[in-house]
Amino acid sequence: MRGIFARRYYTNHGPLAQELEARLAKFLDVKHAVCMTNGTIGLMIAAKALALEGKVILPAFTFIASAQSLTWAGLEPVFCDVDPDSHQMDPERAAALVDDDVCAIMGVHLWGNPCYPERFERLARDNGIAVYFDAAHAFGCTAGGRLIGGFGALEVFSFHATKVLSATEGGCVCTNDDDLAARLRNIRSSYGAGRPVEIPLTGNGRMSEAQAALGLLSLEDFPKIQRRNHAYLEAYRRLLGEIPGLRLQSPPAGETSNCQYAVIQVSAGEFGLDRDALFRILQAENVNCRRYFAPGAHRTYYYRDKFPQFVDSLPVTDHLCGSVMQLPSGQDMDLQKISEVCALIGFVHRNAGPLRTVASRA
Amino acid sequence: MRGIFARRYYTNHGPLAQELEARLAKFLDVKHAVCMTNGTIGLMIAAKALALEGKVILPAFTFIASAQSLTWAGLEPVFCDVDPDSHQMDPERAAALVDDDVCAIMGVHLWGNPCYPERFERLARDNGIAVYFDAAHAFGCTAGGRLIGGFGALEVFSFHATKVLSATEGGCVCTNDDDLAARLRNIRSSYGAGRPVEIPLTGNGRMSEAQAALGLLSLEDFPKIQRRNHAYLEAYRRLLGEIPGLRLQSPPAGETSNCQYAVIQVSAGEFGLDRDALFRILQAENVNCRRYFAPGAHRTYYYRDKFPQFVDSLPVTDHLCGSVMQLPSGQDMDLQKISEVCALIGFVHRNAGPLRTVASRA
Repeated sequence: MRGIFARRYYTNHGPLAQELEARLAKFLDVKHAVCMTNGTIGLMIAAKALALEGKVILPAFTFIASAQSLTWAGLEPVFCDVDPDSHQMDPERAAALVDDDVCAIMGVHLWGNPCYPERFERLARDNGIAVYFDAAHAFGCTAGGRLIGGFGALEVFSFHATKVLSATEGGCVCTNDDDLAARLRNIRSSYGAGRPVEIPLTGNGRMSEAQAALGLLSLEDFPKIQRRNHAYLEAYRRLLGEIPGLRLQSPPAGETSNCQYAVIQVSAGEFGLDRDALFRILQAENVNCRRYFAPGAHRTYYYRDKFPQFVDSLPVTDHLCGSVMQLPSGQDMDLQKISEVCALIGFVHRNAGPLRTVASRA
Repeated sequence: MRGIFARRYYTNHGPLAQELEARLAKFLDVKHAVCMTNGTIGLMIAAKALALEGKVILPAFTFIASAQSLTWAGLEPVFCDVDPDSHQMDPERAAALVDDDVCAIMGVHLWGNPCYPERFERLARDNGIAVYFDAAHAFGCTAGGRLIGGFGALEVFSFHATKVLSATEGGCVCTNDDDLAARLRNIRSSYGAGRPVEIPLTGNGRMSEAQAALGLLSLEDFPKIQRRNHAYLEAYRRLLGEIPGLRLQSPPAGETSNCQYAVIQVSAGEFGLDRDALFRILQAENVNCRRYFAPGAHRTYYYRDKFPQFVDSLPVTDHLCGSVMQLPSGQDMDLQKISEVCALIGFVHRNAGPLRTVASRA
């Protein structure tokens, strides 16, 4: 930070932003990592750089920004249902949604697990449409043993404060395509970074030097944080494994994950209480859990009214939105706290009967 | 900055962002100052918060982001010509452009000088349309003796590193309308700041704590910087006043300005060389000047092709784009350097004949 003040170079693709881009490209084994001020703007600029027009297939079981980026870019979402086990967009259902108005598929690597990127690459190639990925959750994760970042035309990471790699706010768009990288840099506005090319419009997606400084520190810490997250996820798996009606999402066998997300699915019948009741009890006990994502993008105010055809068309998504929750992980936790959270959940399960009576009165 | 790390609260409308918003609102005498990660995103979110649909009248003699914000928001620009003396959008020409498809006027306070905001407020009221202002240049400037920030439905400031108030990247949207402020905060995404309201879409326009920290420091320095800028502008006025064919833009009588912009207009006939020739000579002598704005927004790649009706309809704008330039000011300058720049410009004028011959060979 002192160097930033000494140089009096605060933004406009400065030396730290350039260094972060170079290190990210090397780490992820991609030709270009184009840093952005946040992941949402990365997705918006990505859609413009790809020169998309028409409809884009994406899951509704994702952070709302995935869909909102399309709306900002003048595109229409086509919401696709997801696989009940992996929570990822279902490639077969996506194939059935391709029509003449669809110009692209946006895959989302949910929970840092791979969303079958090679199947979506094939689907896009067979139909002559684009494919790109919202990889907001997936920094440092693999698909088929290959690091996420180089799949499709491009992949978009988020470096928000809640992410495994943090620049406080931030993100980057990765691609192996030189022309696409030039368009991304021009739309972002970069003050001379790379060659000027003709683009449909510009925005301001620049990452400041202060963001880049924190991103560089976070990148150095990544292996350590990944090991810590892995230990936390293993603790959750061990401690929750004995409680009926809970299912912890796991990285597929053979894949590396950042293990940032401790996501459980609650089967009300076996567990004794439904997700919402468990959520309210944990909240009341100051456990920082989240009903992530509820509602699905297809049922939010704007999309519900504008695209009513999707409201009742995503049964698996609706089921997950009502049964999935995130347990706390990351820097505010430790193994002791995780053990306490799991003990509390076990207590809730064992006393589900009386708690159900109390909850129904509340 | 140490406090940010101690709190481990890096973004999401943190304590520093809240403090900056409160101080800005007080300084500018407005009810709400909604901070954004940059001014371009502020303008994009403003257009969505105003629920605009259709066409918006704005000048083409402005930074390209003014127009681009409309394109991101799904709106069409109607480019209006400017006044040759003030360089501001001409209210009479704007009145002639209002038709049934026009939903709003976006005034731009160019060079920190007021763009007749009350005339545009009247024009909007008479036609039942919205009016808002791009005040990127105008922090701490007055219109009719009133600080800019409270005119129209809202005003958008930029806190980019090149601006008089800097948060490295940053901006804010000011309004006295509670409902509009709630919509702005919801579209920005603020994690619980203010009441939730129904909005057409969200984005991510959050200002991080590091940005807010620098913005707060810069706001403390503002009176000092304004005095410094004022002294620099007076020096330019005194030293350039004797050179024929140069006209320095000045704040209107009775108005306060941040004096951040030292803008001259070159009359080739009287000066002896045209703006481009003078620009190239100054550049060659390492004077950090800018041909700001060339071309006008109406002649940039995207708008030229999409809205050809404006290409030849803005004679004053075209003339200014060919004759106006910015001289260096701000923290990298001092009175000695300004005196050297003016001496160089005087030398160029006195030797315009031979230099013209050299320039024509180059």
